[in-house]
Amino acid sequence: MAREGRFAKGTARRESILATATEVLARDGYRGTSLRSIARALELEPAHILYYFDSREDLLQNVIARWDEDQLIQGWEPDPALTLDLYIGAIRRNLEIPGLIHLYLIFAAEAAQSDHPSHDFFRERFEKVRRMLATAVEYEQNAGRIDPAIDPDRTARLLIAVADGVQLQALMNPAIDAADDLAATITQLRSRVDHAVS
Amino acid sequence: MAREGRFAKGTARRESILATATEVLARDGYRGTSLRSIARALELEPAHILYYFDSREDLLQNVIARWDEDQLIQGWEPDPALTLDLYIGAIRRNLEIPGLIHLYLIFAAEAAQSDHPSHDFFRERFEKVRRMLATAVEYEQNAGRIDPAIDPDRTARLLIAVADGVQLQALMNPAIDAADDLAATITQLRSRVDHAVS
Repeated sequence: MAREGRFAKGTARRESILATATEVLARDGYRGTSLRSIARALELEPAHILYYFDSREDLLQNVIARWDEDQLIQGWEPDPALTLDLYIGAIRRNLEIPGLIHLYLIFAAEAAQSDHPSHDFFRERFEKVRRMLATAVEYEQNAGRIDPAIDPDRTARLLIAVADGVQLQALMNPAIDAADDLAATITQLRSRVDHAVS
Repeated sequence: MAREGRFAKGTARRESILATATEVLARDGYRGTSLRSIARALELEPAHILYYFDSREDLLQNVIARWDEDQLIQGWEPDPALTLDLYIGAIRRNLEIPGLIHLYLIFAAEAAQSDHPSHDFFRERFEKVRRMLATAVEYEQNAGRIDPAIDPDRTARLLIAVADGVQLQALMNPAIDAADDLAATITQLRSRVDHAVS
């Protein structure tokens, strides 16, 4: 029992570190977010954070994983009838925290190198999102909402690319609404069925 | 005359540094490319490179600008009838040099912060590519190849996003062919006109 209690306390402390890291990212942006600034907000020593996370990379990777879980992406098996619209909503919420988009894009680009400690995390994340979106596209094809001639896997890759790519452009130019651009892409995808079915 | 001669020599030396930096990126990847490794390939001292470029960022930014000029993007005003296909070709050539894609994506993501020394470079580059692609989309609309109801600016942003985003996925998983995915997007864009015109 005592051991379980300690484990629960450790889990709660990890959660509070991740929540605070997300707040610091939202407030100070990516470059303002360091182990030191997160520790200061928690009134901890930086070294104490490394008791709960193996490294800065491990902490940041878990910030992204936690954000994913808080989004659509809860359990990674949303209702396929709703997934595409939930994905738009998730991107819209990202735009409220540019520091988080910034973290995600820099970190994903760095992790593309196969010896990066977060390489497997990102590779699996891309796979998961692709599968989730491909399942949604197939569902909407069966429901007559999307042209059945479209390749679900490629479409899923393209939707992720649009989301990532337009978020990068929105960081450069805040006049760009990445969620609107993604929504327009999905509307166009659905509009094609009118012709296909006729 | 002597001054012009020195200037020409300086330009030639800058060019040879940029060409060598691109070769080192192709051979050793992004993480293997440092001022030191570029200097070694040129049989120069690293400090000597900084005589021609203000900083590592300035050098890397110029590597990207030079690569752009070598691509479609020569003069930034290609024949609008060919632009979309040239864009696919440019992405296909990028895929031969993953280190360059890696450099571009990390550097663009970092430069999203408005105080980054390369922020204006990337912001203007996104604008230039967007204008070039939007002009091509308008041209193909007038030529009856693309549905005239489509918004050229948004389509241009989406094509850039697809290119950037699928290149990121291709770095994670080399089985993904980013140029094929971009080509499929452009084929779909053009196929819509059959319905729109009828």
